[in-house]
Amino acid sequence: MSANAGELSPYRTAIAADWIDYNGHLRDAYYGVVFSSAIDEFMDQLGLDEAYRKRTHCTLYTLETHIHYLREVKASDDLAVQIAVLDCDQKRIHARGVFTCARVAEPVAVAEAMLLHVMQGAAPASAPFPPPAEQRLLELRSAAAGTDAGLPQSRKIEIRRR
Amino acid sequence: MSANAGELSPYRTAIAADWIDYNGHLRDAYYGVVFSSAIDEFMDQLGLDEAYRKRTHCTLYTLETHIHYLREVKASDDLAVQIAVLDCDQKRIHARGVFTCARVAEPVAVAEAMLLHVMQGAAPASAPFPPPAEQRLLELRSAAAGTDAGLPQSRKIEIRRR
Repeated sequence: MSANAGELSPYRTAIAADWIDYNGHLRDAYYGVVFSSAIDEFMDQLGLDEAYRKRTHCTLYTLETHIHYLREVKASDDLAVQIAVLDCDQKRIHARGVFTCARVAEPVAVAEAMLLHVMQGAAPASAPFPPPAEQRLLELRSAAAGTDAGLPQSRKIEIRRR
Repeated sequence: MSANAGELSPYRTAIAADWIDYNGHLRDAYYGVVFSSAIDEFMDQLGLDEAYRKRTHCTLYTLETHIHYLREVKASDDLAVQIAVLDCDQKRIHARGVFTCARVAEPVAVAEAMLLHVMQGAAPASAPFPPPAEQRLLELRSAAAGTDAGLPQSRKIEIRRR
């Protein structure tokens, strides 16, 4: 594993004006839009980019997402999303995105997704990752081990009564 | 409880052209945008509408969301989202949205959210619902009991190995 094998560049974005809701901060759903764009950039870094998709008809489908909203984000904030690979197998990626902005010391949101590698067509079917992407995923999974301290995790949503 | 106490009108929307991704169907994040709009309409039906928010400085904050993506949705589809109240207390709502479209017999997605009633200001703080909203929530919770058969539920996202 090379010295920087674990490093993924964070995805960065400004807040679009129409992402702000009547509460005066980033509308819940647009954390999801930002996460989706961060996953796209992650796919590019894995080599599952537009040229790959065109050549192979393979892509990633999202099966599930879970988002924890931790802090208010304002129109003047910039967001950074650090993607990590929490787990993977031959066809699936369990990815996490930690959202930060310069104004706030703690993460402002945490998102998780389960992604499936799919060959599209008349009957889309799951397909194994190409070996270079699988190797990179295994490196990233090793690098992410133990990085979840203190972060909320996906779970059953419920009102817990004492 | 009146005969239609459990009925909420479904939220309906067409698919905007820029919600379609490079895979040729509705991008994952825009299910979240549609869910957020459906929750807004639900707030109106609870009486937590714009006039209420202006008068009281109270609103709902989203704490968590979990979405299961079950079927591909295409540009030509219309979406309907049926909101249900899975649980509630004096300050919180555990809401579910079941997404359907006319082309597909089964639900195309299921979303859950935990919502908190908050009084905004220099230090936003949770606040009890006004009594009419609380009463309506209790009716809706009764109406939703037992409606989750066969629907996926929020959970820890993980690769389960045999």
